Amino acid sequence: MLNVNEYFDGQVKSIGFENNEGQVTAGVMAPGEYEFGTSQNELMKVVSGELIVKLPNESDFSNYPAGTEFRVAAGAKFQLKVEQATAYICIYS
Amino acid sequence: MLNVNEYFDGQVKSIGFENNEGQVTAGVMAPGEYEFGTSQNELMKVVSGELIVKLPNESDFSNYPAGTEFRVAAGAKFQLKVEQATAYICIYS
Repeated sequence: MLNVNEYFDGQVKSIGFENNEGQVTAGVMAPGEYEFGTSQNELMKVVSGELIVKLPNESDFSNYPAGTEFRVAAGAKFQLKVEQATAYICIYS
Repeated sequence: MLNVNEYFDGQVKSIGFENNEGQVTAGVMAPGEYEFGTSQNELMKVVSGELIVKLPNESDFSNYPAGTEFRVAAGAKFQLKVEQATAYICIYS
């Protein structure tokens, strides 16, 4: 079962599924600035492009290019700047 | 511009975009068996799950788990077996 979702007027689109990593979404963000809130713990892996991220409790943005990852705990908010279309997967726990 | 496409009655869904890697699709395949044809050269990177692939000119299937990649030249066909939902990105050239 593959569930397509859209956020931010279609600037972020994702495909949700489950496999041996658990509940996962594979998505793409178009260039823009976004704030996301988490309801579960999230492990975000950047697979193409780059996310520029201000994590909860951090005061500055950091660059996460393809091949890197970051974690956000449940019940938090984080800000993203996206300068080129960027693909990611998000693994929930 | 993020373009969602569906193949094989929705068993494969992908999101197309362009960034500094060129023309890319990020997709997910539900469990099943598929044959794809290529119109361009494709670099396929498995990002979650596993693809079991019979490449053109090969007689056997090989396993490509998350973190691995394979290439298919333009104008070829390749077969896939998917045992768990699997996310990939495909970079065209």
